[in-house]
Amino acid sequence: MSTPFLPPERYFDPDPAQRKIALALYEAVADLPLLCPHGHVDPRLFADPNYTFGSPVELLIIPDHYIFRMLYSQGIPLKTLGIPRIDGGKTETDHRRIWQIFADHFYLFRGTPSGIWLTESLHAVFGIAEKLTSANAQHIYDQINEKLTSPAFRPRALFAQFNIEALATTDAASDTLEHHQTIRDSGWNGRILPTFRPDAVVNLDTPNWRSEIDKLSAASSLEVTDYASFIRALENRRAFFKQMGATATDHAAQTAYTKQLDVAQAEAIFLRALHGTATADDAVRFTGHMLMEMARMSLDDGLVMQLHVGAYRNHNPVIFERFGKDMGADIPLAMEFTQAIRPLLTTYGNQPNLTLILFNLDETTYARELAPLAGHYPAVKLGPPWWFHDSLNGIRRYFDQIMETAGLYNTAGFNDDTRAYLSIPARHDVWRRASANWVAGLLVRSIIDEANALAMMHALAYDLTKKAYNL
Amino acid sequence: MSTPFLPPERYFDPDPAQRKIALALYEAVADLPLLCPHGHVDPRLFADPNYTFGSPVELLIIPDHYIFRMLYSQGIPLKTLGIPRIDGGKTETDHRRIWQIFADHFYLFRGTPSGIWLTESLHAVFGIAEKLTSANAQHIYDQINEKLTSPAFRPRALFAQFNIEALATTDAASDTLEHHQTIRDSGWNGRILPTFRPDAVVNLDTPNWRSEIDKLSAASSLEVTDYASFIRALENRRAFFKQMGATATDHAAQTAYTKQLDVAQAEAIFLRALHGTATADDAVRFTGHMLMEMARMSLDDGLVMQLHVGAYRNHNPVIFERFGKDMGADIPLAMEFTQAIRPLLTTYGNQPNLTLILFNLDETTYARELAPLAGHYPAVKLGPPWWFHDSLNGIRRYFDQIMETAGLYNTAGFNDDTRAYLSIPARHDVWRRASANWVAGLLVRSIIDEANALAMMHALAYDLTKKAYNL
Amino acid sequence: MSTPFLPPERYFDPDPAQRKIALALYEAVADLPLLCPHGHVDPRLFADPNYTFGSPVELLIIPDHYIFRMLYSQGIPLKTLGIPRIDGGKTETDHRRIWQIFADHFYLFRGTPSGIWLTESLHAVFGIAEKLTSANAQHIYDQINEKLTSPAFRPRALFAQFNIEALATTDAASDTLEHHQTIRDSGWNGRILPTFRPDAVVNLDTPNWRSEIDKLSAASSLEVTDYASFIRALENRRAFFKQMGATATDHAAQTAYTKQLDVAQAEAIFLRALHGTATADDAVRFTGHMLMEMARMSLDDGLVMQLHVGAYRNHNPVIFERFGKDMGADIPLAMEFTQAIRPLLTTYGNQPNLTLILFNLDETTYARELAPLAGHYPAVKLGPPWWFHDSLNGIRRYFDQIMETAGLYNTAGFNDDTRAYLSIPARHDVWRRASANWVAGLLVRSIIDEANALAMMHALAYDLTKKAYNL
Repeated sequence: MSTPFLPPERYFDPDPAQRKIALALYEAVADLPLLCPHGHVDPRLFADPNYTFGSPVELLIIPDHYIFRMLYSQGIPLKTLGIPRIDGGKTETDHRRIWQIFADHFYLFRGTPSGIWLTESLHAVFGIAEKLTSANAQHIYDQINEKLTSPAFRPRALFAQFNIEALATTDAASDTLEHHQTIRDSGWNGRILPTFRPDAVVNLDTPNWRSEIDKLSAASSLEVTDYASFIRALENRRAFFKQMGATATDHAAQTAYTKQLDVAQAEAIFLRALHGTATADDAVRFTGHMLMEMARMSLDDGLVMQLHVGAYRNHNPVIFERFGKDMGADIPLAMEFTQAIRPLLTTYGNQPNLTLILFNLDETTYARELAPLAGHYPAVKLGPPWWFHDSLNGIRRYFDQIMETAGLYNTAGFNDDTRAYLSIPARHDVWRRASANWVAGLLVRSIIDEANALAMMHALAYDLTKKAYNL
Repeated sequence: MSTPFLPPERYFDPDPAQRKIALALYEAVADLPLLCPHGHVDPRLFADPNYTFGSPVELLIIPDHYIFRMLYSQGIPLKTLGIPRIDGGKTETDHRRIWQIFADHFYLFRGTPSGIWLTESLHAVFGIAEKLTSANAQHIYDQINEKLTSPAFRPRALFAQFNIEALATTDAASDTLEHHQTIRDSGWNGRILPTFRPDAVVNLDTPNWRSEIDKLSAASSLEVTDYASFIRALENRRAFFKQMGATATDHAAQTAYTKQLDVAQAEAIFLRALHGTATADDAVRFTGHMLMEMARMSLDDGLVMQLHVGAYRNHNPVIFERFGKDMGADIPLAMEFTQAIRPLLTTYGNQPNLTLILFNLDETTYARELAPLAGHYPAVKLGPPWWFHDSLNGIRRYFDQIMETAGLYNTAGFNDDTRAYLSIPARHDVWRRASANWVAGLLVRSIIDEANALAMMHALAYDLTKKAYNL
Repeated sequence: MSTPFLPPERYFDPDPAQRKIALALYEAVADLPLLCPHGHVDPRLFADPNYTFGSPVELLIIPDHYIFRMLYSQGIPLKTLGIPRIDGGKTETDHRRIWQIFADHFYLFRGTPSGIWLTESLHAVFGIAEKLTSANAQHIYDQINEKLTSPAFRPRALFAQFNIEALATTDAASDTLEHHQTIRDSGWNGRILPTFRPDAVVNLDTPNWRSEIDKLSAASSLEVTDYASFIRALENRRAFFKQMGATATDHAAQTAYTKQLDVAQAEAIFLRALHGTATADDAVRFTGHMLMEMARMSLDDGLVMQLHVGAYRNHNPVIFERFGKDMGADIPLAMEFTQAIRPLLTTYGNQPNLTLILFNLDETTYARELAPLAGHYPAVKLGPPWWFHDSLNGIRRYFDQIMETAGLYNTAGFNDDTRAYLSIPARHDVWRRASANWVAGLLVRSIIDEANALAMMHALAYDLTKKAYNL
């Protein structure tokens, strides 16, 4: 009953035959470069060659709502964790104290993906080969802190060390992409791509929608005064993003509802929005219409279309008012695709030249709706398990419920979808291990043969993502 | 990491103890005859003793939407696969070219049930002991083609070779069952049963409903002019089907909604339908009412009632207009039974003499609704995992989520539900292997003992189906 | 392929490495006392030191709807099982005959939790080391019958033998708790706690709601004439329950709907109810409002708030009219929490001093809604798998789908939720074995280390429950 620290066969099923195969499959792809086609890393990290991460707490805790939501759930106030407040209130500034609180409560992360990612990251990036505890907390803080000051821990240096082939950021439609321009001008050879995410102007219920429209006008140098100019401005920005290296767009909606409006309806709703009189129903219908428009534009300009649906954002108003968005208070909703997304698929689903990658947080849609849709419509691909489901069990359930019906080749490989830059290698490694374990399970059951197993493993680790995102 | 071709212990869990038990259990039932109480094989196959299947493509690809939907999902047009068009358009006629395309893309089926069934069928029926590849495609085509011309590959000969004890077809209420009559008259001893499926006249929104009613009048020699004569005609047809050997009916609806209408309401809706003025709501209410009527008739005539709900048929209008129905574009819907089917169960659910077998495509209903309903109501039995879920993972999830609450003896064994005649032995074999693996898992965990294990295995392979369908 | 009777490693996964660890973890907690914070055992059992259980049938079959629902589902009328009728009809009185029917059909329980609990209970409590069969039925009946007459089988004696540290009953708001008083006065040291369950007065659609209000008035010595006096009476009763040892309340609703009404609305609805004119919508809104009130009161008096939602009670009116409630005819409903419970969480969810324990029967809410809610809101904890899901597979799915996102320490350990007193040790034992198997699975995969494994095991078997229920 003894377990060494991070043994090579970790996370694999215990059966010796399956484990042996899984390890061999994993090792065959472990050194492949990382493709990161969707995530939330700040491009500033790469624009400034001398960018530093600050303290271990600024690096690992304050930006990671996966971490502090769990501490909050056990009654630890966010302000004691140094989370910046938007209501002007005080927050803890002693980072050593914050780190100690984290270490004292690290037991809360037993068996969680956050626990795995943190332990793996501390080990892989900082060489820390012991579990974080109350006793070693300050010593580990010192080790991280010291390393963070050295040039080897600049984002660009880590980009090379992490063996990242390409990393896509997520950027507003009105973003000037100045940091991306700076990166290109700098002559650095790291491949950082923007992703076109127009939610703030497409979803009429966005806070400050009106000012977002003004930003869009400014960025596109096209005065957005009506629906037609709005569409022109979006097309203008997509062209700019594509020229800046983007290969994909991303869209978030609370549901998968899609329905084309005629131009007069779209115009009427858009004008109501401009006059601040749009209703909640207007917003739902306009988003449903704009998803159709985005598919049309993707068919024109070839940008891959990503759709993330099903999160009830900022579920906790107390936290939202005090700390803002992305504070670990987004809760999934039950989803329906079969009827909701049918209008879009009726118009665009049969286009082999369109790639629509679907993500959602309701696993019941995997076998029931997503796999059958992906197993029929040429345009549809399925994104990897999203958010809470990017975990050992979540990945296993995804393979279990999707692959038989959708087929492996209608999926889009992996993306880390993270703002926690240091966790990227750990997240890809967990995916590759979970993939190896799944493929090994098929081989040891003689569902596939060895040649298939190696090909499927390579596809999961690299090929599927490269193809789906045109990287 | 070496895997022989179709080894005897294939599809079993890798643990040596469980695998050994699973193999022993499987071998104990492997030679039991096959009961096929629900499927879509064309009775013509058996009416003509000299029926031949045509080319390998006509046998294995053109009739199997499980196969071509996957090729289509990867951008291969259906017309290049020889799928007949209803819009008069051209389709590929060179079957060797179609077969080559299939072989070139056979990798798409890695880890899918279609991949397993095809490989198993080619091996069991045609003795092909290698994986289909681009290289061996034409050679394998030759092997199949040659065998298909020999008498040993006539449907009746295969019926004996497959060791099928009984096979039920699915037939419209207005079907004359001429082929079934021909089979009986021929003196051949194969047991082919019709199944009464009145959807086309019971679901008012059926395309050409009116002409289907005329066919019903003709077949029953009862002029259907109102609701009363409609009911009489249906009773007349049920009696005829029963006399022709039917032991069951089958009903498809988009939801499990049931509610008795009073005669006046039913009459009013039916007359609107006859005058072509029925609404969508009329259709829903009439179907819900007719399911009650069908339960009443089953209680009278003893025909087992099957209910399949939850498929959004012909989801892709582009494909439907060009190629018609059953083209791999039916997508499941989330289902609700607890409230929807309560009216039917309130009236008929307590009848031990009624057998109502439920099927649907939303696995979330397994543990939540279906198992508790089957574990209480004497009339309710649960059908095997349907369609997309007739797979190794689907069967495992079915056992996992249903058996603890419903109890094995409230399930209805297996049916292959296929129009692909050659795949029948493979489908039953996969079920028997998956069943053996599940029972072995219970035994190796000491949840049951050896005597139980053997009895449960036999029930799953044969007894449950025989009893549920009165075969 | 030989399986000894109830071997020590039963219910564990077959992999030898995992099994060895699971057994060691199980044995480390097997002798810990049992905490039973939620259940339906009748306090009369402990009020009378000489209470006897009657016949084996009165002990094991008549009170256990888990058992007789399964027999009923196979066509065995409840009256032949001696289930008392409320319609005055006759029922079987020959208990030996009933027991024989049960034994003849015990095969129906193969692989079910009821089968496991019964076998384990007969073994642990009565020393019966063989499977119940038609042949040994009467002999086993004799063995049980004989033991039941001896003092060692009085409830108080078994309480000590079962090593129960605390057992909570479930009691109506108007309950006088006389039996709890008798227990306290008796000087017996067994800890029996009441639980405050006000459903009958809080849910306006309760049959005989009006007379329940009168009972509440009587019990609280506060004339309930309006909403204000209703609230006062409830607060009065909560204080009394707390003084009698209660640490928790329990609330049942068909959905998780919560919404505060203003006092005028609440008053209006309550008065309509008093006048017998409340609508179904009134009932829904009032329950949703009272759940908010109950959270408010729990914040005041510190009683832990349990919420059980999602059962369609008395689904079968035929059985309800003849035999009454709790007859195995309650069927789960699909549930939604994210939006329904948000009003309550907005007002009270951020309170670390409130403990709200959620239960429901729709497993799709585990990973999708419950785990994310518990992983964020300080007040939310998740109860163990409820009812049909208190089974080996149900517990495994619960761990699989909840723990990664919620974290172990946002769950509330185990409760047996049973009225079958004798099954309590078996139910806790199954939970501890399933827990050991899960923790062993994490350790053998190196997701956690040995120290974590032991701590998690102890938490699952004892600590989490003690903390969540303030025992």
